[in-house]
Amino acid sequence: MPLLTNSPEKKTWLHVPANSDFPIQNIPFGVFLTRDDIITIGTRIGDYAIDLGALHQLGYFKGIPLTEDIFLQDTLNDFISDGKKTWRLVRNRISEIFDIKNEQLKNNESHKNIVLFTLDEIEMQLPVHIGDYTDFYSSKEHATNVGKMFRDPENALLPNWLHIPVGYHGRSSSIVPSNTPIRRPMGQTMPQGATQPVFGPSNAVDFELEMAFITTDANLLGEQISVAEAENYIFGMVLFNDWSARDIQKWEYVPLGPFLAKNFASSISPWIVTLDALEPFRVASPKQNPEPLPYLQQTGKRGFDINLEVSITPEGAAPTIVSKSNFKHMYWTMAQQLAHHTVNGCNVNSGDMMGSGTISGPTPDSYGSMLEITWGGTKPIVLSDGSSRTYIEDQDTVTFTGYCSKNGSRIGFGEVSTKLLPVNQNKKK
Amino acid sequence: MPLLTNSPEKKTWLHVPANSDFPIQNIPFGVFLTRDDIITIGTRIGDYAIDLGALHQLGYFKGIPLTEDIFLQDTLNDFISDGKKTWRLVRNRISEIFDIKNEQLKNNESHKNIVLFTLDEIEMQLPVHIGDYTDFYSSKEHATNVGKMFRDPENALLPNWLHIPVGYHGRSSSIVPSNTPIRRPMGQTMPQGATQPVFGPSNAVDFELEMAFITTDANLLGEQISVAEAENYIFGMVLFNDWSARDIQKWEYVPLGPFLAKNFASSISPWIVTLDALEPFRVASPKQNPEPLPYLQQTGKRGFDINLEVSITPEGAAPTIVSKSNFKHMYWTMAQQLAHHTVNGCNVNSGDMMGSGTISGPTPDSYGSMLEITWGGTKPIVLSDGSSRTYIEDQDTVTFTGYCSKNGSRIGFGEVSTKLLPVNQNKKK
Repeated sequence: MPLLTNSPEKKTWLHVPANSDFPIQNIPFGVFLTRDDIITIGTRIGDYAIDLGALHQLGYFKGIPLTEDIFLQDTLNDFISDGKKTWRLVRNRISEIFDIKNEQLKNNESHKNIVLFTLDEIEMQLPVHIGDYTDFYSSKEHATNVGKMFRDPENALLPNWLHIPVGYHGRSSSIVPSNTPIRRPMGQTMPQGATQPVFGPSNAVDFELEMAFITTDANLLGEQISVAEAENYIFGMVLFNDWSARDIQKWEYVPLGPFLAKNFASSISPWIVTLDALEPFRVASPKQNPEPLPYLQQTGKRGFDINLEVSITPEGAAPTIVSKSNFKHMYWTMAQQLAHHTVNGCNVNSGDMMGSGTISGPTPDSYGSMLEITWGGTKPIVLSDGSSRTYIEDQDTVTFTGYCSKNGSRIGFGEVSTKLLPVNQNKKK
Repeated sequence: MPLLTNSPEKKTWLHVPANSDFPIQNIPFGVFLTRDDIITIGTRIGDYAIDLGALHQLGYFKGIPLTEDIFLQDTLNDFISDGKKTWRLVRNRISEIFDIKNEQLKNNESHKNIVLFTLDEIEMQLPVHIGDYTDFYSSKEHATNVGKMFRDPENALLPNWLHIPVGYHGRSSSIVPSNTPIRRPMGQTMPQGATQPVFGPSNAVDFELEMAFITTDANLLGEQISVAEAENYIFGMVLFNDWSARDIQKWEYVPLGPFLAKNFASSISPWIVTLDALEPFRVASPKQNPEPLPYLQQTGKRGFDINLEVSITPEGAAPTIVSKSNFKHMYWTMAQQLAHHTVNGCNVNSGDMMGSGTISGPTPDSYGSMLEITWGGTKPIVLSDGSSRTYIEDQDTVTFTGYCSKNGSRIGFGEVSTKLLPVNQNKKK
C-alpha cells in the first residue's frame, strides 16, 4: 500500500492557519464528543475536526474494507486492529477528499455541515482504551541525571542500562486526555533526616516530558516481534506527561519500582499522529556503544526529529517555557523497545501504550523534568510572573507541545495541557 | 442485604463429593464455554457447572434487578459492577434454588438439561477482563528470604517494607486461566561472573505461590477508599501463579522493578470465590510492629485462613508436593493493600486484579517459590520420580490448590495448573 499523503506540495480546500500542526499531510486520529453529544472517531485538518463516522455513512470510504460502525465507536481500538494497510487506505482517501483539486465534498454544503466541526464544538476524549501501559526509561541523559542525583555520580548509569531498554509496567486506569485537571496526590514519604515516615500531600509533584506510541495487535502470547518488523505494529504517537510525585517515589520505589508516585494520573495529547505522517522526519538514533545483542540490533533511521517544549502557566499568569528538548535524543528506539517487550513472548494488543521515558537533552535547558531542571530542587527556576518553582504548584498548568519541521513542512501533535488541582482529602462517600 | 448462604447445615439436591471445594456454601463465579460452544457466566456446585445465563432466561432470578444479558457475557465485569448487594441477592437465590428442600428445578428435567453441565462438557475461561493488574509483596517471610539471598542477610527487609504494602504494576495481557500451557521465555541475562550479557532461554523459570483479589468499581480518579470500606469493593479471590524468570529478573530489575521476568505469563484459577463465602474463615492477620500510619490501621479480623499447596508433576510422573503454605501468613491485608493503592487517588475498576505477593510461611516446607525452597538453586529438591529440581523444567506441570476448612466445613478454590512448554524460538510469521 503506497503512502500517498506526505507530498509537501499537497494543499487542501480547508483553511489551514500558518504553522498549523495539522496540515493535510498529518491526518491524525482521535475520538471526540460532537455538539450533538455523539461520540465519534475523527481526524483534524487545520482547525477543523472531521467526523469520520459521518463521512463513512455518507459513502466517502466506499471501496475500503471497513465495517459499517468502525468509526462510530468511543475508541480507536477496532480500527487500529484493522492493521497498517487499512490505516493507509483511509489516510490516502482522506487526503483525496480534502485535496484542493477535489470538489466533491467541498461543494456539498449539506455534507460539510454534517462532517465538519470547529474545535469549540467538540470535546476530545481518550483516543484508545489502553489495555496495558508500559513505560520505558530510554533517554541516556535522563537516566544519567537521575543516577547522579540519587546514586553514584561516578557510576550514574546502572550496569544493565546500555544493554537493555529498561522498562516497567504502569497503570492504565488513570491515564487521562489533555485538559483533564488532576489532583495533587496524598502519600507516604520519609522526609530527609526523619526516622519515621509521614503521610500528607506530596510536596514534589513533577512532570516528565515523554512521548508514547500506540500499538496494534502485534503477537500472540509466546510469539516474538523482531526489531525489523516492530514499526509495522506501531499505529502512531502522542505527547505524554508521566506525572510523578518525587517524594513518594523516593520512599516507595525499592525494590519493585515506582507505584503510587506515578499512578495518580498520566496525561496524553488526544490526536494520535501516525508513523506514516512522521516518515519524512526520520533521523538516525544515537550511536549505541556497546553494540546491543543481536535481537536488539537495527538498521536504517529509527529515530524521529520531534521538537518538544514544556511550559508552566500559573493561574492568571503567562506561560513560561521551562524546557526545549527533542525526541531524537532517545538512545533506545521504539522498534527496539517493542522487540524487547515481546522477546519473551509477552503479547501486545491493539491500544496498548508504551512511553519513551523522560526525554532529556544534553543541556539543562533541555531536561525533561523539574527534578533535573532544578537539580533535585536545589536550583529553583523563576517564571515570567516572578514566582519561583522547584516543583509544580497547585493551580499551575503544565503544557507540552511537539512538532516536526523540515524544509517548510510541519507535522505536529497539538498539546497535552493539564492543570494541577489541590489535594482532595475527602474519602469516597 | 443479609448473608444467607454460609450455614454449614445447608444441603443441596445435587451430588457433592466428599471433601469437594464447591459445596452449596461456596457458589463461586466463573465463565465457561458450553458443549454448544456458547460462552456463559456460571457457578459450580460439586462437580456440576451451572449456566447462570440459562437460569436467568428461565426466570429463576425474578425479582432481582439484573439486566437480561448480565450472565450472557464473556466476562464477569458487568456483573461485578452491579455491586455487593446484587452479588448477595444472586448467591442467596442460587442457594435457594439448589437447597435440598426446594424441588422447583430439581423436578424439572428439561430445565436441568439446559442448566447443568458436567465438568467435561465445559471449558473454563478467564473470568474477568483484567483492566489493570497490580502485584503486592506482602509476605514478610518472602521479602525477608529474598532480601537475605540478594541483598544483606543482616538487613534483609528494606526500610520501607514495614511501613508500606509495597506493590508494583504488572501486565494484564498475559494472564491466562488454569490449564493454558505457557512457554519458557527467552531473555537477556548476565551470567554469574560474566562481563557481557547473553541472550537465550531462561534457565530459572520459577512459580510464585500467590492469591489475587478481583475488585469492583471502587472509586473515581482522585478519590480514596479507606481501610474500613475496602473489603466492600472486593468481589472475590483466586489462586494465582506469578510465573517468574529469576535470571532475567536479576539482570533487568534495577531500578524500575521486574518486567520481562514476569510478563511472559501469569496463571489464575478460573472460579472466583467471593469474600462472602470466605467469611467463616476470617482470622487475625499478624500483629504489625511498628504500628502503620493511621490511613493503614485496621480493626477486626482481616486475614483469611486458606491452606495452600504446590505440586510439581513431571511429564508422565506422579505429583510431588513441594510446599504447604497459608494465606493467613500475609503481613499486609487485602484491605490495607486496596486502601494504600487508592490513597493517592488512583482509580480502581471492575475486574482489576491485585496479587498478594508470594505467600511464604515461616519454615522451608512452606516457602512459596523454588527460589526460596532451593535457596537460590543451592539446595535442589528431589521429586517422587527421583529427578531433582532447582527450578521448573520443560513439560513440568505446576499446580496450586487452596481451601479453607473449619468444623467440618470446607470452601475451596479448585486449582490453577499450568504446564511449562519449551521455548518458542520462532518469530511471528
